[in-house]
Amino acid sequence: MELYAEQTQQEFEGWEEFYSKLVDEKLDCFQSKGKLFDVIYAQQFDREFLDYLCNLADMIRVLAKTKMGQKKLRNLLPHKRAMLYFVQPSTRTFLSFQNACYILGLSVSENRGTITSSEVKGESPEDTIRTFASYVNLIISRHPQAGFAEKMAWVLNQTERPVPVINGGSGPDQHPTQALLDIYTLEKEFHDVGGLDGKKIAMVGDLKRGRTVRSLSYLMKNYKDVELFFVSPDIFKMKDDIKSFLVKHGIPFHETDDFESIMPKVDAIYMTRIQNEYSEDPSSEAETYPEFHFKTKHLSMIHPHCAILHPLPRRYEIEVAVDKDPRAAYWRQERCGMWIRAALIAHIFGVEGEIFKELE
Amino acid sequence: MELYAEQTQQEFEGWEEFYSKLVDEKLDCFQSKGKLFDVIYAQQFDREFLDYLCNLADMIRVLAKTKMGQKKLRNLLPHKRAMLYFVQPSTRTFLSFQNACYILGLSVSENRGTITSSEVKGESPEDTIRTFASYVNLIISRHPQAGFAEKMAWVLNQTERPVPVINGGSGPDQHPTQALLDIYTLEKEFHDVGGLDGKKIAMVGDLKRGRTVRSLSYLMKNYKDVELFFVSPDIFKMKDDIKSFLVKHGIPFHETDDFESIMPKVDAIYMTRIQNEYSEDPSSEAETYPEFHFKTKHLSMIHPHCAILHPLPRRYEIEVAVDKDPRAAYWRQERCGMWIRAALIAHIFGVEGEIFKELE
Amino acid sequence: MELYAEQTQQEFEGWEEFYSKLVDEKLDCFQSKGKLFDVIYAQQFDREFLDYLCNLADMIRVLAKTKMGQKKLRNLLPHKRAMLYFVQPSTRTFLSFQNACYILGLSVSENRGTITSSEVKGESPEDTIRTFASYVNLIISRHPQAGFAEKMAWVLNQTERPVPVINGGSGPDQHPTQALLDIYTLEKEFHDVGGLDGKKIAMVGDLKRGRTVRSLSYLMKNYKDVELFFVSPDIFKMKDDIKSFLVKHGIPFHETDDFESIMPKVDAIYMTRIQNEYSEDPSSEAETYPEFHFKTKHLSMIHPHCAILHPLPRRYEIEVAVDKDPRAAYWRQERCGMWIRAALIAHIFGVEGEIFKELE
Repeated sequence: MELYAEQTQQEFEGWEEFYSKLVDEKLDCFQSKGKLFDVIYAQQFDREFLDYLCNLADMIRVLAKTKMGQKKLRNLLPHKRAMLYFVQPSTRTFLSFQNACYILGLSVSENRGTITSSEVKGESPEDTIRTFASYVNLIISRHPQAGFAEKMAWVLNQTERPVPVINGGSGPDQHPTQALLDIYTLEKEFHDVGGLDGKKIAMVGDLKRGRTVRSLSYLMKNYKDVELFFVSPDIFKMKDDIKSFLVKHGIPFHETDDFESIMPKVDAIYMTRIQNEYSEDPSSEAETYPEFHFKTKHLSMIHPHCAILHPLPRRYEIEVAVDKDPRAAYWRQERCGMWIRAALIAHIFGVEGEIFKELE
Repeated sequence: MELYAEQTQQEFEGWEEFYSKLVDEKLDCFQSKGKLFDVIYAQQFDREFLDYLCNLADMIRVLAKTKMGQKKLRNLLPHKRAMLYFVQPSTRTFLSFQNACYILGLSVSENRGTITSSEVKGESPEDTIRTFASYVNLIISRHPQAGFAEKMAWVLNQTERPVPVINGGSGPDQHPTQALLDIYTLEKEFHDVGGLDGKKIAMVGDLKRGRTVRSLSYLMKNYKDVELFFVSPDIFKMKDDIKSFLVKHGIPFHETDDFESIMPKVDAIYMTRIQNEYSEDPSSEAETYPEFHFKTKHLSMIHPHCAILHPLPRRYEIEVAVDKDPRAAYWRQERCGMWIRAALIAHIFGVEGEIFKELE
Repeated sequence: MELYAEQTQQEFEGWEEFYSKLVDEKLDCFQSKGKLFDVIYAQQFDREFLDYLCNLADMIRVLAKTKMGQKKLRNLLPHKRAMLYFVQPSTRTFLSFQNACYILGLSVSENRGTITSSEVKGESPEDTIRTFASYVNLIISRHPQAGFAEKMAWVLNQTERPVPVINGGSGPDQHPTQALLDIYTLEKEFHDVGGLDGKKIAMVGDLKRGRTVRSLSYLMKNYKDVELFFVSPDIFKMKDDIKSFLVKHGIPFHETDDFESIMPKVDAIYMTRIQNEYSEDPSSEAETYPEFHFKTKHLSMIHPHCAILHPLPRRYEIEVAVDKDPRAAYWRQERCGMWIRAALIAHIFGVEGEIFKELE
């Protein structure tokens, strides 16, 4: 057993060393042949890529408007098989990935249990992942453990048969495809007012723990003259790491707990819910912070073009009656998630040429 | 929180008002462009529709007899995606819907758990349904709560993106596609003796709680000169609502607890099991009522053309040895369920023209 | 109830009589039109069939190397639907069968729960199986109960609508497709050294309870001049039934607990893990038997062409660092499982002609 422990230690150190590197230092490791292979961090996306992927998603939607176009989409990747390994509960991320796969014709295997039979038999997570890679061409994972998707990619990239890994959320921190869909939604909502550059965006709610607002803040460095408004109760303020990042990149931001004062100023309001599920004692968070809810009466206070976003699920942060206002963008945002994920998969497998060709 | 409660109340009242309407008053709400959109109630089917759908199911079966025909069927709806949201356990209904989808080429997402991650996060059922509608083109649901499918349809029909909802069983009352498959089976079994019109049908077992026999009784108003025989222990007699309905529509019926006396008289025997699973204390229902079982010895007592049906699963109501008799129709009945559901989906998506064209 | 009990008894006796027959006496029952229909026992495979199926798997892999070839494969069985009925946890067998189906274009329904809704409602396993057969064209099952797959096949073969049954593992004894993949892997690994005939194979670990090494030993009768080395702790020695079988077929074997002494002598080492999960008290088996592990240092002690196999999942039987040696065949073995299962399904549905034709 000593030898085994020693070896494990050695493997562990290799991974530990890699994992402890700064994100920017290791982005190349998730590339293959000069383009995206694994999708682990939102930091992998620069402006050029974001613009390109939004455009590709638009093209896919154009094709999807006709039965013939949809059949062509389904004929892009019928020879590929994906594994959705979702150890953590998820409705939206799971369904949008699964249906993005279907749109492009991929077959899908799913494992949504928290425990696989192999774990019962004592298999290591690394071996379980290699097993998935034996049968499929793409692994999409969601896992409660920070760094899980990255570790999967790292393990597979050292084998004879690496397959791409897409991080569908790992732990409290990274959820890069959520950031993609938020950008895509904002660009679409701002289509008639010149796109994301130069816009004022409010982020509201639990900014401390909400990974969507954190990722979105990071990605703002790719856009010109964006101004952010952080609206939250004092105990849920945006953490210093993000604020330092914004200062470093010259992105102006403001902090307040007065939501209504901000409403008339912004081009988009990104609502979030209090993340009780990450709390050790959810029942202790009975407070709903009604001053940080968006209500019907607020509709008259915001710009005619102001987009209201929410990563969903919502609880009481947005009144249901707001849904009928054309500025309520959150249901469209869900669908944007499916389309941008389809674009991402199409890109990873290099079939975008066929999509653009169809539309010539 | 007060505002939220008020708003919820308001939404709730809109639904409550709709739900409390008589079924016949709201059937139009489940139509779109003059044809079936949502399938919620057996009352949506009139004779013309039933004949038409049985015919369409037959045509699908003809096509399915050859590999080329099957490929043509799969090419009808490869661009559509269905969600099977089965909160209540189900083997037959689930598998027949799923395989009906496959036959027509649809991709299928499934959620068979009792709790979605969104519920954990505090999402309302209405929002969960809207989320499903964001990703798929058809929702098929089964739920223990009466009115659930109807509510889903009602919610979606008020959004920008309604998708059709098919009720795969909601609570103890409605299960309209079971009624369709029963009609289709009877029509097929009576193919050589002039169809359903003019037939004598016995319904046997738990008539009080069995929703299949209740729905089937309702649908009899679409057929001429049908006569019903309700055979049950006294405590499981057909309820008064159905009997009033039959009287109103001039459909003769008889009630008895003497099964053998009825056997020689009827053209079909629809067996059901005692519905222990709806009982609060299943163990209290140890009684199996053997006088209401169909046994091998009874085969000599029924008409040469008499069809024996059962919605399945069975326990002891029909002896296994009866299965080998050609009049045992219940296994064919299962397959009829798959074909009629395929026909229903083909109709909802308006591809019947392509099916009929293939067969010209 | 007496009649029911009597009848059950009668059915039961029919099955009991069949089940108690010697395997060789009933192999014909799993044939249809002179070829394999149900796949229940490894004894169904003779040398000619094994060679043929390995060749077919190779042809499928050749086709799968191009997108056009993959599309042709998917076009072989898009009109067929499979049911994966996996009552027992399984990662590898499940995923390899599911993806084998996808490769050939089949649609897949899955039931991975331990209890179906029908069982809750009191349905017999026989009726549940007939229900599956109503909707699909192929049933692949894994079940903890010995004889389960055989019983399914036996039940269906007496109905109007038999569909093929593939045994994906039933109880502690039979797992015929694992035997197929082991043979296929050995043949491929020995491709440059003349194939399986004449080879020396060590089987290591829990030989008493490991069904893979037991099945593989049986299949050795199909190969010429094979010599076996059983390497295990005394309490996990190969059972007498296998040893008698080998004596009867003139296959030489040796037993030892000195693993290192065997290493230089053999052409393949088949590692297995201690099957704690079959133990009544897994915690009682804390012993890991390190003398029966394969470690990096052993790589210098084995033949340059020696193949290391393992059915996986592994725990500590093989050091992870061994994976990088080209002789570590176990990850390739996993994929062989998918390809040979695809070949098996193609054979059952008789589409091998189309595969060979593509490659002319």
